[in-house]
Amino acid sequence: MKKGSNRRGFLVSAGLSAAITGCKQGGKPATTAEDEGPNRLGKPVSEYGQRSQFEKSKRHLPDTKTPEAASTRTPLQDSYGILTPAALHFERHHSGVPALDPAQHQLLVHGLVDRPLIFRLEDLKRLPSVSRVHFVECSGNGRSEWSPKGAPDAQRSHGLASCSEWTGVPLSLLLAEAGVQAAAKWLLAEGGDACKMSRSIPLQKANDDILVAYGQNGEAIRPEQGYPLRLVVPGWEGNINVKWLRRIKLVDGPVMTKDETSKYTDLMPDGKARIFTFIVDAKSVITYPSGGQKLTAKGFHEISGLAWSGRGKIERVEISTDGGKTWVNAKLEEPRHRMAFTRFRLPWTWDGSETILVSRCTDESGYVQPDRDQLIAARGKNSDYHNNATKPWLVKADGSVTNA
Amino acid sequence: MKKGSNRRGFLVSAGLSAAITGCKQGGKPATTAEDEGPNRLGKPVSEYGQRSQFEKSKRHLPDTKTPEAASTRTPLQDSYGILTPAALHFERHHSGVPALDPAQHQLLVHGLVDRPLIFRLEDLKRLPSVSRVHFVECSGNGRSEWSPKGAPDAQRSHGLASCSEWTGVPLSLLLAEAGVQAAAKWLLAEGGDACKMSRSIPLQKANDDILVAYGQNGEAIRPEQGYPLRLVVPGWEGNINVKWLRRIKLVDGPVMTKDETSKYTDLMPDGKARIFTFIVDAKSVITYPSGGQKLTAKGFHEISGLAWSGRGKIERVEISTDGGKTWVNAKLEEPRHRMAFTRFRLPWTWDGSETILVSRCTDESGYVQPDRDQLIAARGKNSDYHNNATKPWLVKADGSVTNA
Repeated sequence: MKKGSNRRGFLVSAGLSAAITGCKQGGKPATTAEDEGPNRLGKPVSEYGQRSQFEKSKRHLPDTKTPEAASTRTPLQDSYGILTPAALHFERHHSGVPALDPAQHQLLVHGLVDRPLIFRLEDLKRLPSVSRVHFVECSGNGRSEWSPKGAPDAQRSHGLASCSEWTGVPLSLLLAEAGVQAAAKWLLAEGGDACKMSRSIPLQKANDDILVAYGQNGEAIRPEQGYPLRLVVPGWEGNINVKWLRRIKLVDGPVMTKDETSKYTDLMPDGKARIFTFIVDAKSVITYPSGGQKLTAKGFHEISGLAWSGRGKIERVEISTDGGKTWVNAKLEEPRHRMAFTRFRLPWTWDGSETILVSRCTDESGYVQPDRDQLIAARGKNSDYHNNATKPWLVKADGSVTNA
Repeated sequence: MKKGSNRRGFLVSAGLSAAITGCKQGGKPATTAEDEGPNRLGKPVSEYGQRSQFEKSKRHLPDTKTPEAASTRTPLQDSYGILTPAALHFERHHSGVPALDPAQHQLLVHGLVDRPLIFRLEDLKRLPSVSRVHFVECSGNGRSEWSPKGAPDAQRSHGLASCSEWTGVPLSLLLAEAGVQAAAKWLLAEGGDACKMSRSIPLQKANDDILVAYGQNGEAIRPEQGYPLRLVVPGWEGNINVKWLRRIKLVDGPVMTKDETSKYTDLMPDGKARIFTFIVDAKSVITYPSGGQKLTAKGFHEISGLAWSGRGKIERVEISTDGGKTWVNAKLEEPRHRMAFTRFRLPWTWDGSETILVSRCTDESGYVQPDRDQLIAARGKNSDYHNNATKPWLVKADGSVTNA
């Protein structure tokens, strides 16, 4: 069969007639491949596996003189499905990654409680547990997108977000055991890093769905993610998901810690600052084709990407392949988890001309992801955090993809 | 507060009054912990993470002189949630792990087709894809359990099963593109390892749900799992999920390859052999408390484990804490995926006396996991593969857990 000859298979019948133009028959008759292939023994079994030597995907390191107070970004453009491999989960540390001994680590629950308690890790692991898939996103994710220039690839524009299956104990259970007093309305969560990163959290959220987590993607939480213990605060900005968790103090109001007053606020046009916004607004990004990638041929390409919201499930992702003039619904991978990455996909046949691709998501609360103009109309130009605008990618005629 | 003093929290009200006996208040007043903690900078950000130095869980290596034709076992007793970290996914190789270059690797689809095709990896990645969570289980898993002695821990008894989020192209799509001829009823799937491990698969299954997968848990499939391409045949015995996939040949009947005739058959009491059983029967195992672990104290412990079935979803897991005399339903973690691990959990208060714990699952087809006697009654004592019997664990008065 020659390339381009008549095909009557599924892709044709589905109207994707330009599909898999990259498919080809080998130079030799295909059936001789029965006798080809490797003929040497491969590597033996091993106690702990590594990825292939051919896989080079890495977290993006910043150019910084303070790598202990810095962030790295997940290579979302190389991702499959909804999970982030633990080794590639984004990082944001304020004083580096402490090396905590799980046999020594303890969690103190105190303040406005009837019974202050200290939990060892082995105590926590005996208690009722749950596993849930949730994203974590740094509130600084998308900072580059306040500028009309924008970041050149999905890793640098959106890579401060990752998604894992977390396992742990509901915080509500620990609080009930300690006996929360009526005066308690908030809690302070403090990390075991050198700077004692800490945030104030309304008590209601703790009673809703916060986890004190020790498991990530089937194994112990990784050191960069808070080993051996972190808060997972579903759908709330990343730094509230306090890592290396050592202390929960019940208090009657927000503590106004250094971390929540010096950062994570948005300066509004009227000169006032938004603080304690907490919830991550709905957001999406196309990961293929995305900036830095190159379409190798005209014809069929599946457009794919990720959407997430701090308000629950993603209900809809629309994609435009003409710069926003027309939109069609993408297919959402099931099951969709609440406050988790949702993978979306859309069949697309590229005719070889320059165009702009962009995705826009809607969550179960009805919130619709804004474009950059809409976001600036609502928030002004002084914001630095919490940018959830749509991200257009320019596909050039040579197949290369850049920020639009 | 002294240990054992009155508590009025959630655990008490839920009737779990002996809960968290391991919890304690520190020798010093708890509030002084505000001033404790590390005070040195931790490690800087990094491009690719590693697990904590304190985590030692490993695949179980066999004592063998042929480590290229051997298996390793997942440490299920250390698992959280339903996912298996890729580095700990069980292995079964017949001639070692080949080092395949993804830029060179190709998949041939030929035989009884209108258009033989060769797909490069980059072709496949352009096509419509899906992501699904599925277990893979070696048909030899549980071999030890044919003996009344049984394996001493969950890793050695059940560790030839693992669960991942797989991403790839439906095989049905590639077959439609090639044009399957009417005479084709089966297909041959061949691996790119030195022995060309190959299995025959009824065509119907390919049209149902088989994936040609290149992604595992958010990244490229690991080398031991078939990098860069493998079949994922949901719910069917492990070796059919052909790794390092290089060839699919449409044929009119089973090929009777060396791999499917020399192995994976069950010798029945009447002297006949079961062959091509394919579907993994429903199975479960308690992972905590399980053999080799030790309960550190009387009181509350959450019993937890994993259940799976080749026939779809797990509908029910019952647990007995008295050696099978009485049974109660465990809670199943949602969402439950079809042909995937399902995590089950049950609150339990251990009174310190010797007892036997055992789990028993039922899948959505109504199939109930048998105990060892029931399995032997059905299959005789000559079987070596396909043991899905219930697994009792003996909890001794000193808290140690062994095979019952």
